[in-house]
Amino acid sequence: MPEEVLVLDRTQVRRCAARIDPVAVTEEVLRRHARAEVMLPAEGYMAWRNSEGAYSRSIAMLGALTGSDPVYGLKLINASVGNPSKGMERAGGISLLFDPETARPRLLAEAGYLSALRTAAYTVASLRRLGPESFDAVSVIGCGTLARAHLELIGRYLPQVTRVHAFDTDARRGAGFARWAAERGPAMRVESAPSARACVAASRVVITLTVSDKPYAEIDWFRPGSFVAHVSLDDLCEDVFAGAERLYVDDVQLIAENPRRILGRLLQEGAILPGDAEVADPAREVRRGVVSGTLGEVLIGKVPAARPTDGVVVSNPFGMSILDVGMVNAIRGVAERDGLGTRINLLGTDGEAR
Amino acid sequence: MPEEVLVLDRTQVRRCAARIDPVAVTEEVLRRHARAEVMLPAEGYMAWRNSEGAYSRSIAMLGALTGSDPVYGLKLINASVGNPSKGMERAGGISLLFDPETARPRLLAEAGYLSALRTAAYTVASLRRLGPESFDAVSVIGCGTLARAHLELIGRYLPQVTRVHAFDTDARRGAGFARWAAERGPAMRVESAPSARACVAASRVVITLTVSDKPYAEIDWFRPGSFVAHVSLDDLCEDVFAGAERLYVDDVQLIAENPRRILGRLLQEGAILPGDAEVADPAREVRRGVVSGTLGEVLIGKVPAARPTDGVVVSNPFGMSILDVGMVNAIRGVAERDGLGTRINLLGTDGEAR
Repeated sequence: MPEEVLVLDRTQVRRCAARIDPVAVTEEVLRRHARAEVMLPAEGYMAWRNSEGAYSRSIAMLGALTGSDPVYGLKLINASVGNPSKGMERAGGISLLFDPETARPRLLAEAGYLSALRTAAYTVASLRRLGPESFDAVSVIGCGTLARAHLELIGRYLPQVTRVHAFDTDARRGAGFARWAAERGPAMRVESAPSARACVAASRVVITLTVSDKPYAEIDWFRPGSFVAHVSLDDLCEDVFAGAERLYVDDVQLIAENPRRILGRLLQEGAILPGDAEVADPAREVRRGVVSGTLGEVLIGKVPAARPTDGVVVSNPFGMSILDVGMVNAIRGVAERDGLGTRINLLGTDGEAR
Repeated sequence: MPEEVLVLDRTQVRRCAARIDPVAVTEEVLRRHARAEVMLPAEGYMAWRNSEGAYSRSIAMLGALTGSDPVYGLKLINASVGNPSKGMERAGGISLLFDPETARPRLLAEAGYLSALRTAAYTVASLRRLGPESFDAVSVIGCGTLARAHLELIGRYLPQVTRVHAFDTDARRGAGFARWAAERGPAMRVESAPSARACVAASRVVITLTVSDKPYAEIDWFRPGSFVAHVSLDDLCEDVFAGAERLYVDDVQLIAENPRRILGRLLQEGAILPGDAEVADPAREVRRGVVSGTLGEVLIGKVPAARPTDGVVVSNPFGMSILDVGMVNAIRGVAERDGLGTRINLLGTDGEAR
């Protein structure tokens, strides 16, 4: 019997993504996570230097949504920091879904766009629950692939946002981002900030989308009543985590296990506490230096949603494979309904002979 | 720019495999392993029960050959024990190679055949160095996909073997294997043994290729001067490991880290010692209960090759991802030279527009 895999390239993934509600998909995965209806095995990680000495790596993340309608899959996301200079996105790879009955790979999708989409969907979901009551501007630090994915979703879900302050250490990349946004229409105006600090100070919603490996943003850079989505790895200094009004994550354990990122290091050092004991007390006061809970716990009502008052609320997702697995599963539904994608038979004519 | 992946189905993989020397490829990977020119990150593992209650799992193994001609890749090998009853092989998946410069997936190949091929190639390589001086029969326990792959390679590399004793707990599978061998020609006659014990006793080369999760073969089942390739997970009882004249593995650490297999458990319990201190002494006496070394160390001359005398020599490979990565790299060479495979552009028309 043939063993078919449905292949979706980026164009097809995008077409499917336009017909789903990526934030609703993300929120449903987060709820399943908060109800412990997921599997998140330790990720495989392999790093090397390419012939130019550029840091290159592969991350293989298995993940599953369990329960009555299970979804099993893998996200392979590789990257080399030298890729942008070759005209390629830094990261790329494939997402797979497995047949729950036979465990065979059944769907393969380009992972770079999906990964950016689910990352932006998480940011929008966190903003809706934990962001300022009202805002019409956002500040974006880092103007690569993730910035474009965020702008697309902000335009779709948060139409009140009309101004985007943007900064990139590479001025050309910043200018390219502003041009790209201008070509998309007049709904959002991108203004280039002269520095990261000026960008942070320009609005009360800050989103970090960089490749920084050294924290730079200090707590006194932020306006009172700010929300910051710390999407990239090492942008916020220790004093932002220690001084935040609230600190939300996607999965405490995944973050704590990875000391290559600042919040993981702070948790391992005990400078920030995981704070599990607090989560059931909706009336508790602000306790700085303690993780307030996960966004999934907020969504199921286990942890209160707290918007910024006079300080800073921090959202710090690790980036769970199950968000990709859930998103690609939603996209598969559209692809199968609309007949998109290419089928390949992994067994070839051997399969026909069996 | 497009981001192309060359896809090889099983038929194409087989065609390429016929034009390479899989045992030579395997031996070269083992030599690089013995010289520490490899990367073997911890594997990702996820298991579940399907709707029929059948154990199902996914294993994602990154691996690399480093040095002057680096090869980076992933083997995804999934399985469900219920698959054979559906007319499918138990295990299946995909192997990937990454571009060393950009880390992008560049080749995707059906993994089931490749996995069986590299497993059989390891057995042949171990037999050539560590098996009896002369033999014309082998005993095969377990008559599934791996048995066929072994028979194909034994026919190619060990033409003196004219008889194969075979046993399977499923008599129909055993009969199917004998029929398949008979259709391939008269060079090897498959004789069905009435029991696992009779099969072990029928020759001095025993190869276990089962899905057993409970050891059954005891040391007094073996003829003096036997070699056993313990390819599957749990076939040999503790007394075989403890009483073996020599015990060779592919990677001590990988085995010791996995207590789901008997030798891993024995190493964790201290019942078998890793024996690293011994490996440099070619003149040492038999020391039972100690790992003698790796096959790679034998191939580079760091550890002496010892054939069975009046006892049993055990070969117990874990099954390293780098063997798949090396094999698929050799196959890629043939595919590119001969223009085999299908190219897919992961970016679709998005890639053309960039």
